[in-house]
Amino acid sequence: MLFSKLCQVATYTSLLLIGSSVTNAAQATQAQLANQGRTVHMGIILFPGFEPLDIIGPLEFIFSVSEKFPIKLYMIADQVGAVSAVPPGRAHMAGPQFLATHTFQNTPKLNILLKPGGMGDISMVEAGNTVIENFIKQRYDELDYLMSVCTGSVSLARAGVLKGKRATTNKRLYNWVTSNGPDANWVPSARWVEDGKVWTSSGVAAGMDMTYAFLKMFYGDTVNENFNTLEYAPLLDSRTDPFAIVHNVTGRDDGNLTSCVTPAGF
Amino acid sequence: MLFSKLCQVATYTSLLLIGSSVTNAAQATQAQLANQGRTVHMGIILFPGFEPLDIIGPLEFIFSVSEKFPIKLYMIADQVGAVSAVPPGRAHMAGPQFLATHTFQNTPKLNILLKPGGMGDISMVEAGNTVIENFIKQRYDELDYLMSVCTGSVSLARAGVLKGKRATTNKRLYNWVTSNGPDANWVPSARWVEDGKVWTSSGVAAGMDMTYAFLKMFYGDTVNENFNTLEYAPLLDSRTDPFAIVHNVTGRDDGNLTSCVTPAGF
Repeated sequence: MLFSKLCQVATYTSLLLIGSSVTNAAQATQAQLANQGRTVHMGIILFPGFEPLDIIGPLEFIFSVSEKFPIKLYMIADQVGAVSAVPPGRAHMAGPQFLATHTFQNTPKLNILLKPGGMGDISMVEAGNTVIENFIKQRYDELDYLMSVCTGSVSLARAGVLKGKRATTNKRLYNWVTSNGPDANWVPSARWVEDGKVWTSSGVAAGMDMTYAFLKMFYGDTVNENFNTLEYAPLLDSRTDPFAIVHNVTGRDDGNLTSCVTPAGF
Repeated sequence: MLFSKLCQVATYTSLLLIGSSVTNAAQATQAQLANQGRTVHMGIILFPGFEPLDIIGPLEFIFSVSEKFPIKLYMIADQVGAVSAVPPGRAHMAGPQFLATHTFQNTPKLNILLKPGGMGDISMVEAGNTVIENFIKQRYDELDYLMSVCTGSVSLARAGVLKGKRATTNKRLYNWVTSNGPDANWVPSARWVEDGKVWTSSGVAAGMDMTYAFLKMFYGDTVNENFNTLEYAPLLDSRTDPFAIVHNVTGRDDGNLTSCVTPAGF
């Protein structure tokens, strides 16, 4: 609790003192400069019943950053065309349709692959549909980074790429997801988890906080201005996970509720 | 600052004491019960260069709530089909395409209309394209609520429906938007503003906080479980707007930086 309060007072004091004149003075590393200069091929998997914010949370910030650094986007599904967020069997729901631009067959080599979650994950597992798991398994070695949001980690687990790795997932469906990946080291209290090239986030909105940490690592502090333009104050401490409490996840750690949410760079 | 600290300690204490057994005991009002029972016709305007999270921030929560309450969604554009978030003239950017299901001509009567923002707003104003402003003007009287996110308020202002009303907008483009609506009462420090049936939010991510306040007003505390399932901790105080400081908005009020971000209902 003490750190939480100190953090908040300190950051807001700096806001009031410095205002918009603050600059992100930290130098980019050589690796970050190289990332800024190379074209990143980014794939996002679409499937019926995807969770819209699992995709657009991360993609909003990637879209913004793509104004200054080269990123090519591949929206990947069974076939090119519209894919609905409305889950199979729930036609009464009011969900958007996103356009798939590539298929599991014709997507070129990727640097980063994101697997979102959604109620469609449950439908696919129940139907024994392994097309996404197979795609992840096929592409794993070529990727620099593999990311999932929410229940999206179920596909990573079933593809076998979480074996021995630390990972997290949606906290309401924690038991269901983790039962699909008994060989992973699941972290009950985590907004997101990074283990080598695999980044997994907790449910839905957590994907935005993971994306801030990821883009800051990948491109450097220059991404702070994107998050401030988009008026998103990211959670900075990946261990802060009040939703593990809300959903009463077994084995949770209640010691890290810092909730330090402030504009990026302050 | 004092309120901020008290708020945070109190809410986290309640989380630790009560855990997932907390219930939203507050009774819904008669108006909220009526809203839960009626079919809500919800329109969202699409245009080239829309900001993805301006739409999916609010829509993610509306989508979730539509599992239990009847909502019909209309994605509205010039013509049915794919609409790109990539702004005119910025083909190098990595943005998604959303599917428009209805046109400005064939959309039935709406209860709620949402106008997102995005760089496309600037293109439209510069090109003298008034199709969206005209649609808002035509539909204003039939609406129960008109909402905008980010620069989306520029269309409301130019449609003339903000005359004499309190409103807010994106803080980085605050001067541009407000110069398009000299007869509105713009609020420099606000995460969102409600004035009668018009709700306007600050930039991009602020649309999610406005949507929590709106859905809680409209349906009652029952929406808390949706926000907790989606692991989004909304900002509860509409006056808390650190981004007015980040972007140095003239006339800002620095006295309301409570930053009380906790799971809904705690």
